[in-house]
Amino acid sequence: MSQFRNNKILIIAPHADDEVLGVGGTMARFAAEGAEVYVIIATKGYPPDYSEELSTTVRNQALVANRLLGTKETQFLDLPAANLDCVPYRDINHQLVEAIRNIQPEVLYIPFNGDLHIDHQKIFSSALVAARPNRINAPSRIYAYETLSETNWNAPYLTPNFVPNVFVDISGYLEMKIEAMAIYASQIQPFPHERSLEALRALATLRGTTVGRFAAEAFVLVREII
Amino acid sequence: MSQFRNNKILIIAPHADDEVLGVGGTMARFAAEGAEVYVIIATKGYPPDYSEELSTTVRNQALVANRLLGTKETQFLDLPAANLDCVPYRDINHQLVEAIRNIQPEVLYIPFNGDLHIDHQKIFSSALVAARPNRINAPSRIYAYETLSETNWNAPYLTPNFVPNVFVDISGYLEMKIEAMAIYASQIQPFPHERSLEALRALATLRGTTVGRFAAEAFVLVREII
Amino acid sequence: MSQFRNNKILIIAPHADDEVLGVGGTMARFAAEGAEVYVIIATKGYPPDYSEELSTTVRNQALVANRLLGTKETQFLDLPAANLDCVPYRDINHQLVEAIRNIQPEVLYIPFNGDLHIDHQKIFSSALVAARPNRINAPSRIYAYETLSETNWNAPYLTPNFVPNVFVDISGYLEMKIEAMAIYASQIQPFPHERSLEALRALATLRGTTVGRFAAEAFVLVREII
Amino acid sequence: MSQFRNNKILIIAPHADDEVLGVGGTMARFAAEGAEVYVIIATKGYPPDYSEELSTTVRNQALVANRLLGTKETQFLDLPAANLDCVPYRDINHQLVEAIRNIQPEVLYIPFNGDLHIDHQKIFSSALVAARPNRINAPSRIYAYETLSETNWNAPYLTPNFVPNVFVDISGYLEMKIEAMAIYASQIQPFPHERSLEALRALATLRGTTVGRFAAEAFVLVREII
Amino acid sequence: MSQFRNNKILIIAPHADDEVLGVGGTMARFAAEGAEVYVIIATKGYPPDYSEELSTTVRNQALVANRLLGTKETQFLDLPAANLDCVPYRDINHQLVEAIRNIQPEVLYIPFNGDLHIDHQKIFSSALVAARPNRINAPSRIYAYETLSETNWNAPYLTPNFVPNVFVDISGYLEMKIEAMAIYASQIQPFPHERSLEALRALATLRGTTVGRFAAEAFVLVREII
Amino acid sequence: MSQFRNNKILIIAPHADDEVLGVGGTMARFAAEGAEVYVIIATKGYPPDYSEELSTTVRNQALVANRLLGTKETQFLDLPAANLDCVPYRDINHQLVEAIRNIQPEVLYIPFNGDLHIDHQKIFSSALVAARPNRINAPSRIYAYETLSETNWNAPYLTPNFVPNVFVDISGYLEMKIEAMAIYASQIQPFPHERSLEALRALATLRGTTVGRFAAEAFVLVREII
Repeated sequence: MSQFRNNKILIIAPHADDEVLGVGGTMARFAAEGAEVYVIIATKGYPPDYSEELSTTVRNQALVANRLLGTKETQFLDLPAANLDCVPYRDINHQLVEAIRNIQPEVLYIPFNGDLHIDHQKIFSSALVAARPNRINAPSRIYAYETLSETNWNAPYLTPNFVPNVFVDISGYLEMKIEAMAIYASQIQPFPHERSLEALRALATLRGTTVGRFAAEAFVLVREII
Repeated sequence: MSQFRNNKILIIAPHADDEVLGVGGTMARFAAEGAEVYVIIATKGYPPDYSEELSTTVRNQALVANRLLGTKETQFLDLPAANLDCVPYRDINHQLVEAIRNIQPEVLYIPFNGDLHIDHQKIFSSALVAARPNRINAPSRIYAYETLSETNWNAPYLTPNFVPNVFVDISGYLEMKIEAMAIYASQIQPFPHERSLEALRALATLRGTTVGRFAAEAFVLVREII
Repeated sequence: MSQFRNNKILIIAPHADDEVLGVGGTMARFAAEGAEVYVIIATKGYPPDYSEELSTTVRNQALVANRLLGTKETQFLDLPAANLDCVPYRDINHQLVEAIRNIQPEVLYIPFNGDLHIDHQKIFSSALVAARPNRINAPSRIYAYETLSETNWNAPYLTPNFVPNVFVDISGYLEMKIEAMAIYASQIQPFPHERSLEALRALATLRGTTVGRFAAEAFVLVREII
Repeated sequence: MSQFRNNKILIIAPHADDEVLGVGGTMARFAAEGAEVYVIIATKGYPPDYSEELSTTVRNQALVANRLLGTKETQFLDLPAANLDCVPYRDINHQLVEAIRNIQPEVLYIPFNGDLHIDHQKIFSSALVAARPNRINAPSRIYAYETLSETNWNAPYLTPNFVPNVFVDISGYLEMKIEAMAIYASQIQPFPHERSLEALRALATLRGTTVGRFAAEAFVLVREII
Repeated sequence: MSQFRNNKILIIAPHADDEVLGVGGTMARFAAEGAEVYVIIATKGYPPDYSEELSTTVRNQALVANRLLGTKETQFLDLPAANLDCVPYRDINHQLVEAIRNIQPEVLYIPFNGDLHIDHQKIFSSALVAARPNRINAPSRIYAYETLSETNWNAPYLTPNFVPNVFVDISGYLEMKIEAMAIYASQIQPFPHERSLEALRALATLRGTTVGRFAAEAFVLVREII
Repeated sequence: MSQFRNNKILIIAPHADDEVLGVGGTMARFAAEGAEVYVIIATKGYPPDYSEELSTTVRNQALVANRLLGTKETQFLDLPAANLDCVPYRDINHQLVEAIRNIQPEVLYIPFNGDLHIDHQKIFSSALVAARPNRINAPSRIYAYETLSETNWNAPYLTPNFVPNVFVDISGYLEMKIEAMAIYASQIQPFPHERSLEALRALATLRGTTVGRFAAEAFVLVREII
């Protein structure tokens, strides 16, 4: 009932590791099932907040982690991390428009606009501009994903709340997701931090059992055109 | 990327004609594309509010209209129309559980819980109970549809608001939907009533243009399991 | 039951044509019924995104279109189009405060804060600051209007949703609205784009039938003082 | 800009005194300005919960209080107080349809669906059914009012929240409202109970100052047709 | 900063086991810290849906499980399980008013009104009526708890969503909670059902890591008086 | 049941006087009960909008008013008043992180993100970043307070709405709050402005009676860790 123009999936991550935290298992599963998975890491850490060395390290980790998950291509934009509120929407829009035009993904995963991090909020808005449904090659499905240590730290009932309506069974891919996340050594915190592997596993288990599966990733549907 | 267990679609309509108003074009398209379309009309009009003759007439119209749209089977339950608030949830639940167990649909369309009509609200809730995702054969996709002359007549921002996130292109099936609705002669009102063919056409046009299509039906996703 | 201080109406449009898309029929009707209709076009397109020629053309179209609708005066501010996120709120506030002080409108129409376009969102917020109800000559009624190709393209349930509670019967003025929109030749797209005349007509028909009228424009009430 | 079919106002109160708590000042003002004010008290207290004597007393108080406010007619329905969840919607709908058809009010005031009391919730829903905008004589404006000791006692963010967008200046009528409420001696509680005259005065003061007036009653607009 | 009138905690559970699923760890912790913990099981299963034997068994399990958690007293009401929509609110209100008057709890835990089960929804509403803040001995804190296999199975964004703002650290009591739940042998389902011990553990882990704890139970605050 | 690490309370005020408007009575009460109360005034008025003299005067008033309420320390940051949208989040975050790290408050009061003033909105967001629950000394309770002439002037149902779930009894401290506010002579407007002492008193009375107290301040809980 759902014919697809192509089998391209694009995940837009504000920062390297968001794509794994939110969509890692889904990336692995769909890649295994034949999809072409693309990742765009939208920002880069700059001195003095982030050393060049750290930025390079993290980008290399991203390449390794994404390759493990079967990603076909990981692209890096150079927007300034943790400073997107100082970048005009027009510039972010422009870069995402370009990226989407080049890849022409059928499915798009974007961060959640209720995340505490302003970078996530702006990428969400710009991605919706870039994916406006007025062009024939606009993505036909757009999902917002959750990010541990961002999504649950905003204000209940006062900022947009993540209440998922889409569940992707990743029972066979949870271990691969955990492994991919482990590659981002510098981004992981020891349990019981929310950005720990234990929290990641608990979230996948909970999302899975909600729909009777061993593990799942959950999303909020933004728009689907069938 | 989405393998289906089967290609069965079930539309639950509180009253005969709701299935055409909300899902008629989608039924026609998916039937044409090979889906098995089932319809359950949940209620029946009883005297003194509705004559037996009228009830029989409407049910015959439902059979004709649904057949036109390619429906494989239209089932009728005998719950009392416009009186569902007097029927225990348990009984409604039970009947819908049975129906879903028998048909085992992959996709489920239900009325919207923000509709003004209490029958719509109760069918929505009971359908969600009947489609709980704890059984392996639960529907993998549940959508709420809009019903002209119910959905827009409730209280903005005070009752649940219909803001669609799923659009089904029915450009090639709008005329068939209009034709099917015309079969329900007794349920149609002259323009500019909201339950007129002109309103139906305007809604399909608007929902279509939102996503750059000539005509569409729009839904709110309740849950999807992939 | 509602005595008015005056009969001045002010529509604030982020960009030329928004006033017609959202309020064109209402402008025409109230002008015909004796209101003084004012329009403020808040932004101007600048090179390199917009040529000077195009900006001039569009402003001339605005004058013609608004005059057709019976507008008494169309004012142009020079804020940079598609760049309002780079303009301090204080500056936008200041310009709108001035404009409202000069016109002293009884009724104010502003864009919707859930529109996808950041310009719409900022104009909404600044207009509310400028129309704070602490001054005796503050507008006594404030409405948010919908804009095809902006309002329906944001994220359902995650950004503010347009669910109208005010319907203005424009049955006698729809053709004039369409005509006014047609003057903005450069802003119209061919059907089935959402910014087509066909979409505009479908929206007016739908909003009309919701309240049993042939055509209507619909709004969300922000505040009314009686 | 707003021509009215007539100048009839109808307030539907679940229980005697709700009309004064929520709309008393507005009733007084509009009656003084020439409106015909109608009140429907929807329920009656029955033994064993309420003695016949108390019911009679309260109804007499309603007549006196409403007359003081300039009400043209107070009608009493006999639905069972605090038991509306046991009355079929169809019956409540029917009684309200009749009442609205007879009075043909231009403006309708109804209780708020987020009130803690189930009677308020059901009257809200039934009133919306009775005031559906598909008939030419449907009310053109519908407002929900707040009721001290009901509206603020429900669950913030979990049940519908009263956030007013309509403010009626009752600066000249607050004392009359207080006086009318004082007639309902049995329904008033000593300060600091929320159903005290002091609370009533504080609420009117707060609602007033929000829009720079000495006193106001505040409402949520459900629908306006202009 | 928070002086308490007493140290009594009351959990109202629609069905035996809801109190453990939602509040088990908190009960154990606060009991260990000196609180008097009371539980009210509101309903009883009746034939033919539930055998007398099963009902007796479950009640005995409740006594054992609650005692394990340090509960001072478990009370059983006899409202009909899965049939509360057929019981007048007045009767449910009355029983809960009585119970709360007798116990006079300082803190009250109630089910969530967005749960799929109608029994949960009605107990929520009746509990708020029974705990109205107009009496000097009303509970000073009211929390809604989540229930696996009910809370996550309703409709995202259409029914009230559980987004917790209160987290109780149960790191030292999670094992006791699991043990208590295991006593309800008949209510547990094998993993990956959402009502499995694995899901319970995952939820506690996730809620804990959100606030940097090893395990937590999470709640939505309904009202607190300090 | 609630052991506290310390008894430090921190109020973050965008502008001098917000702390008294929103939290003045609570500050007075908790100081009297032994808490250490800290206040951070986040911004300063700069020429040409605010004269140096006025800024100095207001800061002196803040010191006097806060001392009256029992504040242990009032700190002043130098962020530009009414211009926070032009300050990078990173800078605001950094200053609040520092302040919170130094004070290590147990309880945090922040402005409401639905306030009309952009300064309030940005301070809200930055405060949540600074109070992220991933550090062991993060505040265990975070409340948003309401500010007369900001909170009620935004857009009902379109921007976040203040619906309080926490009520602090300030019956014994209302006069002190009024007195403290009166010190801010330049910030007070004559009745019936919303920023008048009469409005302040009405709000406290209303919030009090909602929970059966003579006066209260009301808050929305953002997060509590117990």
